[in-house]
Amino acid sequence: MSKKPLILVTNDDGINAPGIRALISVMNSIGDVVVVAPDSPQSGMGHAITLNATLYSKEVHFDDGPQKEFSCSGTPADCVKLAIRELSDRTPDLCVSGINHGSNASINVIYSGTMSAAIEAGIEGIPAIGFSLLDYSWNANFEASKPFIKSITENVLKNGLPNGIVLNVNIPNSSSEDIKGIKICRQAKANWVEEFDKRKTPQGKDYYWLTGKFVNLDGGEDTDEWALENGYVSVVPSQFDLTAHHFIKDLNSWDL
Amino acid sequence: MSKKPLILVTNDDGINAPGIRALISVMNSIGDVVVVAPDSPQSGMGHAITLNATLYSKEVHFDDGPQKEFSCSGTPADCVKLAIRELSDRTPDLCVSGINHGSNASINVIYSGTMSAAIEAGIEGIPAIGFSLLDYSWNANFEASKPFIKSITENVLKNGLPNGIVLNVNIPNSSSEDIKGIKICRQAKANWVEEFDKRKTPQGKDYYWLTGKFVNLDGGEDTDEWALENGYVSVVPSQFDLTAHHFIKDLNSWDL
Repeated sequence: MSKKPLILVTNDDGINAPGIRALISVMNSIGDVVVVAPDSPQSGMGHAITLNATLYSKEVHFDDGPQKEFSCSGTPADCVKLAIRELSDRTPDLCVSGINHGSNASINVIYSGTMSAAIEAGIEGIPAIGFSLLDYSWNANFEASKPFIKSITENVLKNGLPNGIVLNVNIPNSSSEDIKGIKICRQAKANWVEEFDKRKTPQGKDYYWLTGKFVNLDGGEDTDEWALENGYVSVVPSQFDLTAHHFIKDLNSWDL
Repeated sequence: MSKKPLILVTNDDGINAPGIRALISVMNSIGDVVVVAPDSPQSGMGHAITLNATLYSKEVHFDDGPQKEFSCSGTPADCVKLAIRELSDRTPDLCVSGINHGSNASINVIYSGTMSAAIEAGIEGIPAIGFSLLDYSWNANFEASKPFIKSITENVLKNGLPNGIVLNVNIPNSSSEDIKGIKICRQAKANWVEEFDKRKTPQGKDYYWLTGKFVNLDGGEDTDEWALENGYVSVVPSQFDLTAHHFIKDLNSWDL
């Protein structure tokens, strides 16, 4: 049995996306790799799971790398569950998700299938990292990301992560020499201001496309948005205990 | 113009679910009500949003109450976005989501469409509460929940909620006289242990159903699971800044 760590790779852009191909190539240089990823794009799926439909999975081969790969008809969170319980020979030592085509910094963590896959692994007690590049295009260049991904991954394997915490890593869309380094950050208090594009079907029925503008009103220099705007890779330790502990005392003073 | 607060009501079980009907009836006794809810069940959708498909919405009438109602083809988070930007005449003063048919306590908050709708409203700066009853059946009895829902809602309207915090309220499946009161709690560290039910299609192809067991290894008496098991309504203040602030210092000591 291999003494190398077993690394589970997944994403939300689909198993054939260039981003996951880049991530697999880095992970093959670190450990044994099993890939379980959606068979179609699942962006914006958040932490959806498939409760009312069947799940299909099949072994696939996209390149001549040593990794074992399975596509799955479900969401990113489904992929992680299925990988751990059914498809992987042993429990993965690490789960990495991405490289996402586009930012998952600040409030995007909430909508992100990439980060939900990492969080799902974290819930299962497996150290996990979500990686995203700030380039939404399918043909984004992931080369400059690779050394940062390798360094962060090796650090997580060496140091571990506390129960309940996963890492949200975002990488500026710059060349290697323009990326200034890595910053540990907090999630910026930013949000999307939606604009619905209202149209009519050829039959005259109203419908909408969801569009929006990203607005960052958080002036802090310790945020992921600040780091990215200033040329740094951002690393936010993210937790899935959503309790706002600091507000419990106030709530106890309410007349409930 | 009405001086009553405008309350946006949504859910994830669908606009015709008995749970949302019960919630609407309570809200009609407190304010003006606009309902924007999914036209089909959206359980387990987490914080999914519809990026790659069109959204439909239409005005509907399910009973003779004074509320204005719209069904929407999207997810619970879509419903909230569409309500605020397109369907509501003015910005709602409050958003309530539910009453969910089934628990959204502890880790379920992550998978819950009900809570994601409340969180979406919170992101938009609107005070928000998710309500869930610990009975998964369609014909659950919501009567005992109503006085607690009314009291918590009136308190939120009176006291407000800080930016970035929404309430996750779960209600035991008991009669009014057996519910002991309301407890402010933290989210229990519990999780689901999945068991995939592997089957074959009539054509011989493997497929899976996701099933699982809920496991609570958190012995704390300050958790939502403890409160519910002991006959209390649980209220957890929940936040969407996922930053694990306490781990930032440790991460800064890594060799990145």
